[in-house]
Amino acid sequence: MKLAVVGGGSTYTPELIDGFARLRDTLPVTELVLIDPAADRLELVGGLARRIFAKQGHPGTITTTSDLDAGVTGADAVLLQLRVGGQAARRQDETWPLECGCVGQETTGAGGLAKALRTVPVVLDIAGRVRRTSPDAWIIDFTNPVGIVTRALLQAGHKAVGLCNVAIGFQRKFAKLLDVAPAEVHLDHVGLNHLTWELGVRLGGPAGEDLLPRLIAEHGDAIAADLHMPRAVVDRLGVVPSYYLRYFYQHDEVVRELGSKPSRAAEVAAMEKELLALYGDPALDEKPELLAGRGGAFYSEAAVDLASSLLGGGGSGVQVVNTYNNGTLPFLPDDAVIETQARVDASGATPLAVPALDPMYAGLVSHVTAYENLALEAALHGGRERVFKALLAHPLVGQFEYAEALTDKLLAHNREHLAWA
Amino acid sequence: MKLAVVGGGSTYTPELIDGFARLRDTLPVTELVLIDPAADRLELVGGLARRIFAKQGHPGTITTTSDLDAGVTGADAVLLQLRVGGQAARRQDETWPLECGCVGQETTGAGGLAKALRTVPVVLDIAGRVRRTSPDAWIIDFTNPVGIVTRALLQAGHKAVGLCNVAIGFQRKFAKLLDVAPAEVHLDHVGLNHLTWELGVRLGGPAGEDLLPRLIAEHGDAIAADLHMPRAVVDRLGVVPSYYLRYFYQHDEVVRELGSKPSRAAEVAAMEKELLALYGDPALDEKPELLAGRGGAFYSEAAVDLASSLLGGGGSGVQVVNTYNNGTLPFLPDDAVIETQARVDASGATPLAVPALDPMYAGLVSHVTAYENLALEAALHGGRERVFKALLAHPLVGQFEYAEALTDKLLAHNREHLAWA
Amino acid sequence: MKLAVVGGGSTYTPELIDGFARLRDTLPVTELVLIDPAADRLELVGGLARRIFAKQGHPGTITTTSDLDAGVTGADAVLLQLRVGGQAARRQDETWPLECGCVGQETTGAGGLAKALRTVPVVLDIAGRVRRTSPDAWIIDFTNPVGIVTRALLQAGHKAVGLCNVAIGFQRKFAKLLDVAPAEVHLDHVGLNHLTWELGVRLGGPAGEDLLPRLIAEHGDAIAADLHMPRAVVDRLGVVPSYYLRYFYQHDEVVRELGSKPSRAAEVAAMEKELLALYGDPALDEKPELLAGRGGAFYSEAAVDLASSLLGGGGSGVQVVNTYNNGTLPFLPDDAVIETQARVDASGATPLAVPALDPMYAGLVSHVTAYENLALEAALHGGRERVFKALLAHPLVGQFEYAEALTDKLLAHNREHLAWA
Amino acid sequence: MKLAVVGGGSTYTPELIDGFARLRDTLPVTELVLIDPAADRLELVGGLARRIFAKQGHPGTITTTSDLDAGVTGADAVLLQLRVGGQAARRQDETWPLECGCVGQETTGAGGLAKALRTVPVVLDIAGRVRRTSPDAWIIDFTNPVGIVTRALLQAGHKAVGLCNVAIGFQRKFAKLLDVAPAEVHLDHVGLNHLTWELGVRLGGPAGEDLLPRLIAEHGDAIAADLHMPRAVVDRLGVVPSYYLRYFYQHDEVVRELGSKPSRAAEVAAMEKELLALYGDPALDEKPELLAGRGGAFYSEAAVDLASSLLGGGGSGVQVVNTYNNGTLPFLPDDAVIETQARVDASGATPLAVPALDPMYAGLVSHVTAYENLALEAALHGGRERVFKALLAHPLVGQFEYAEALTDKLLAHNREHLAWA
Repeated sequence: MKLAVVGGGSTYTPELIDGFARLRDTLPVTELVLIDPAADRLELVGGLARRIFAKQGHPGTITTTSDLDAGVTGADAVLLQLRVGGQAARRQDETWPLECGCVGQETTGAGGLAKALRTVPVVLDIAGRVRRTSPDAWIIDFTNPVGIVTRALLQAGHKAVGLCNVAIGFQRKFAKLLDVAPAEVHLDHVGLNHLTWELGVRLGGPAGEDLLPRLIAEHGDAIAADLHMPRAVVDRLGVVPSYYLRYFYQHDEVVRELGSKPSRAAEVAAMEKELLALYGDPALDEKPELLAGRGGAFYSEAAVDLASSLLGGGGSGVQVVNTYNNGTLPFLPDDAVIETQARVDASGATPLAVPALDPMYAGLVSHVTAYENLALEAALHGGRERVFKALLAHPLVGQFEYAEALTDKLLAHNREHLAWA
Repeated sequence: MKLAVVGGGSTYTPELIDGFARLRDTLPVTELVLIDPAADRLELVGGLARRIFAKQGHPGTITTTSDLDAGVTGADAVLLQLRVGGQAARRQDETWPLECGCVGQETTGAGGLAKALRTVPVVLDIAGRVRRTSPDAWIIDFTNPVGIVTRALLQAGHKAVGLCNVAIGFQRKFAKLLDVAPAEVHLDHVGLNHLTWELGVRLGGPAGEDLLPRLIAEHGDAIAADLHMPRAVVDRLGVVPSYYLRYFYQHDEVVRELGSKPSRAAEVAAMEKELLALYGDPALDEKPELLAGRGGAFYSEAAVDLASSLLGGGGSGVQVVNTYNNGTLPFLPDDAVIETQARVDASGATPLAVPALDPMYAGLVSHVTAYENLALEAALHGGRERVFKALLAHPLVGQFEYAEALTDKLLAHNREHLAWA
Repeated sequence: MKLAVVGGGSTYTPELIDGFARLRDTLPVTELVLIDPAADRLELVGGLARRIFAKQGHPGTITTTSDLDAGVTGADAVLLQLRVGGQAARRQDETWPLECGCVGQETTGAGGLAKALRTVPVVLDIAGRVRRTSPDAWIIDFTNPVGIVTRALLQAGHKAVGLCNVAIGFQRKFAKLLDVAPAEVHLDHVGLNHLTWELGVRLGGPAGEDLLPRLIAEHGDAIAADLHMPRAVVDRLGVVPSYYLRYFYQHDEVVRELGSKPSRAAEVAAMEKELLALYGDPALDEKPELLAGRGGAFYSEAAVDLASSLLGGGGSGVQVVNTYNNGTLPFLPDDAVIETQARVDASGATPLAVPALDPMYAGLVSHVTAYENLALEAALHGGRERVFKALLAHPLVGQFEYAEALTDKLLAHNREHLAWA
Repeated sequence: MKLAVVGGGSTYTPELIDGFARLRDTLPVTELVLIDPAADRLELVGGLARRIFAKQGHPGTITTTSDLDAGVTGADAVLLQLRVGGQAARRQDETWPLECGCVGQETTGAGGLAKALRTVPVVLDIAGRVRRTSPDAWIIDFTNPVGIVTRALLQAGHKAVGLCNVAIGFQRKFAKLLDVAPAEVHLDHVGLNHLTWELGVRLGGPAGEDLLPRLIAEHGDAIAADLHMPRAVVDRLGVVPSYYLRYFYQHDEVVRELGSKPSRAAEVAAMEKELLALYGDPALDEKPELLAGRGGAFYSEAAVDLASSLLGGGGSGVQVVNTYNNGTLPFLPDDAVIETQARVDASGATPLAVPALDPMYAGLVSHVTAYENLALEAALHGGRERVFKALLAHPLVGQFEYAEALTDKLLAHNREHLAWA
């Protein structure tokens, strides 16, 4: 079984490698290719990756390459974890929207649109090369904004599933609070990527008892603290929103916070520098402590589970992923991409039925879906007008003057990444 | 043919009477009952109404009463134009939301929710009395928020149609600009009450040539000026939004404007005082000039047309009204109430097919529909929690802290009008 | 020794009476007159006042009257604690400025100007009557805004001193934290009423050791919590600002807070209702617990100390009061009224020398002094233009559009209290 | 007579040269040295300068050098027109303050502080070199923020006068409106650099008739349009504020504007590129049209007038400059630097008496003076704490959270220019 990781030179990769090593029974990888245009970085990361495999006695080989076509050839699955423009572009995404009082964030709002515009063409190019070299390979997309990118892939006919770590994070958190095994926890996780609510937390499976009311009653403070939202939010809603709902439920407060502190990109960039220095140490043969602060907890577990289900291995077969709606949320078009519990097997992902979504959430989901639709149009076809339309359609923008100004700022800060601009 | 007007003591009534007088060929009313609990005011208005009929040689009789049941008995149609709490309540609706930076308006946002909460139970009570006394009567609802009130009526099984003057205003305006008869102008008017866009302006009927691009090119300045929006909005969208879209497209600017000037309610209250003084003059036998500034242009024409179509008279048979969606906008539930061109006859209103609504608008329409759904729940069943949910679901509120604060303010200012509060 | 209390029907009065009773050695009052136009209320308060004196064995008499001239005749000192327009006017002051994003507060910003405009003419009328009936009487002004009201009194040639409880509150608080007697604590308290900083906390007197650095280091959390400001504010400034500096240092956050909760006036009004019910109980002969939440802690101690110093009794002779600057703060005009430690005796109050005020504070003090100057002009001479000028000059307003809007709102909400409007 | 221009490679220099050529009777320069570290740019600008002199028959020589000491040696006057960090630094100054809702501008607010911090040490170093090489030379400072920079120079004992073109711009504008010669127009120009009001416009001199009321009545629209403020501002104040008062009187509106359009620095940078291309054309021998849009109108006339007065030539002897207050504004310290009409001769600048400044303006002037005091401390001595203090003291910042955030942003964007950071 051969896996390729596009963006394999990421400082995050050792986390993924550690997961592959620990979970080799679930996903028996024989060959792992790390692909990245940044050769120097790739060498540092690849070296550590090999030492981790060696220390844990994993028999698979790890190779590195900057040649995408060569790297993906013959792969059974290709993981996408790239970042077009790197942390520098992210820092921009997090900053310029604040100039007109709008949230600056890498996946939500105007910053998220910028990321989508930069990313979709690159991902589609990669996917095209994968299709040419390894027509049967599955594409597993971690690359943000996962919802829009996955829709771009599916719409272009690729074998793709989108993956995010929000759901698995909740699963592990709730399992710990309930003192049960993570696999016992089934989430009624509904919405769009980064716009989801846990409507139920069931023991054993979709038909299990819903423990969410008990969880909130007994552990509401801990849950709310993780979300950086007041306890009252969780109590009043009676469901658990994803952390990203802060950008909606507390928009103005978040804007003030973001305007008052260094960008997350600046923090991550500093951390990456430190991590790369550590990776260069030939004595290091496990993921360093520091990596925990880098974000992306449990991504490797989620990736292993998903890949093994898709490739006929020992995966759980049920997982929260991003895929076509196909009637799951009746108020959305079939070809919208949603994030929800799905049955996953060699034929791909099929959403499970979910509880009805309260209008309190469904209205917002419809609104953001319309934005994502327009964002994808802009990413595929370019043009100032399409960017403007997507921004006006975003519930966090919505005002004419802001949409105009944000369009100009987006273009001014992203010209080098947008072929059409 | 007997018509009853609930809220007949409104200073606006002479406008309606003038329309009935001018258009008696279309709608041959024989008996008109003005119903209002405010007997003094009713007397002033009723007197002028009779003098207007007399001067124009209308043979029908006009009676006044504060007894609702008596007044509506035997009516063929009942027009609802009431305002629970009067201008005083409206002034509140326009003011307290500003305290937390949200728009204060009688139909949009938190103020509109307050109005819905006050109004729906009163209207349903009246409709129940109409059904008991005149089971075949049509209810024509002018009472705001028309969308929510109409949905309440339809959901309770009443024979009702909702009516607003935004569409007829555009029709008349565009006819003038195009130098054609108003009846020649067919609007592709799509959305929800006070949340509509003119997607096309067709000559002669639904299949006529679309003159909207020409209208915008040649008269964009005049159109934008009427909307109090910059010309660029109309040019960029290529469609004409209703004036109420300002509360969305220019929300923050409108909040600043509203915070800087007297409320519209205060202006109207002053005007009403003046109007009533005029009405008391027995020499006055036509609607005074001043009434033009009161708002509600062309309401009487729209009402006459609608009533005559419903009652088998000489109405146009095609009119913009509020009624069940029933698949017209495919992304909304069938039982959402939309505002659009409809065929109107003795069986009621049936929406005509409309062009597809761009996601740039459809997302917002879905979001507001979800709010209206929750607003109606709150109006029907009461409770702080339902009010909070509706506010959190509103795209112009959406933030937890504001939803909480606005809920408290709404309740504090409306306790006397809310049985459950 | 005869004392008169104008506004004696306040629910706060039992606090004052309790102080007079406890501190009768310092201030041997023989006759106390409570004066208030609200006769019913005065009766309730007066009854309890007499029972408190009786229980504590105070030999003085307490009388009540609604006749101001009669009440003040022969008084040695007259205490002013009135509130023109009551809690209803205060509720307005706290609310309408929020409509354009400005702080709504009873003494700071536009609400404070409204209070000044309502209050100054009433206080000057009372002072004139005092001068006619008791030319030697001292006027002790508690009535807010104390700085502007005191300046009005002094400028009109009255024997007046302004008093606020912020300083004595700090003195008691710091004494407790330092575990010394309050009289041991000398404050370098500098600025204007409700715009002060404790620059030093000295043991024993003006030349004593400055314990403020130690206080902040050891008790910074407790001090900051009392101020409702983050600990960082106290640490970074190295001095202790008055609670009212929140309206400057955290203006936007306070506006959001105020927009999200019931007004303080509404809370106080509810409490007053409860208190009056308690006062009516003939068995009650001490100030009830509930009174502690009413605000005004230590006012009675401060008043007794000040009155006894002015009247040649056993007062401390040194106290924080409001009086003419006379060069104390060299960057302000001599006839500005400042709040600072002063020597107080039968000739009145004379400020003690204070440490130089850092430009970080002095600039703001100059700015607010200019505002107070214009506010007093507006209070004395009326006119929309003077109101506008004062608002434009206020550092928390300062913008043309806001000054215009706030002027209109101030006038609209205060017409009944402003003879000239 | 030898003059040196530090920053002589500025694209603005041809304007200055054109003035020197036209006004050679007033200021008979024999040698002009353009000094700039950017040798390439200096060559382009110097070439055009020589061609302008040649075409207009000016007999003086123009030399260029990047060696400051050599260039200033023997100079009678040194003009400072440098920009530390260039347009790139300016673009930062105009942008990052917007991220927390504060005005971003090159001389006002947090951006102006950044410029002061970068500039003061450089200017003091240059002034020290001037003093060593040409102890009698006058320093004429155009470099912004002129008020703070001039105070730094004077405080260090240099022979310096600060100059800005706001006053001469008003003089020329008013002269045109009144149809008189500019020299006939005497301004009662009072305040601090970029914080001034024209309190009077007198014909013939300080004692002439005040024509300001007539100017406003007859030309208020034109005057207000130049200021980009509503006519009402001019009418209501009855005086003419400088354009920079917009940042105070319309702060929030300006922030929105700035957040919605490209920075002024970006515009100027584009224009400079174009200008330099033009300057390279050996056929060009006059200042090009395009230079008019660069800003700085009438600077050359003001500079010639000032230099000739200081050097005993034919200057007017009375001019608006920046110099020590020395009691002119009685509410400011003597060593504050103000901007006002002054008598200028070989002994330097001595302010003329000015009308009293209304508290409506004086409060703000005091506040900004306190800020400038702290800004200079920060520029001279460095340190995060001093930056924070200056920001907290600025009337457009004033809030703790913003002062903290802006301090961090200022430092993050200016580290390369601040030796101590």
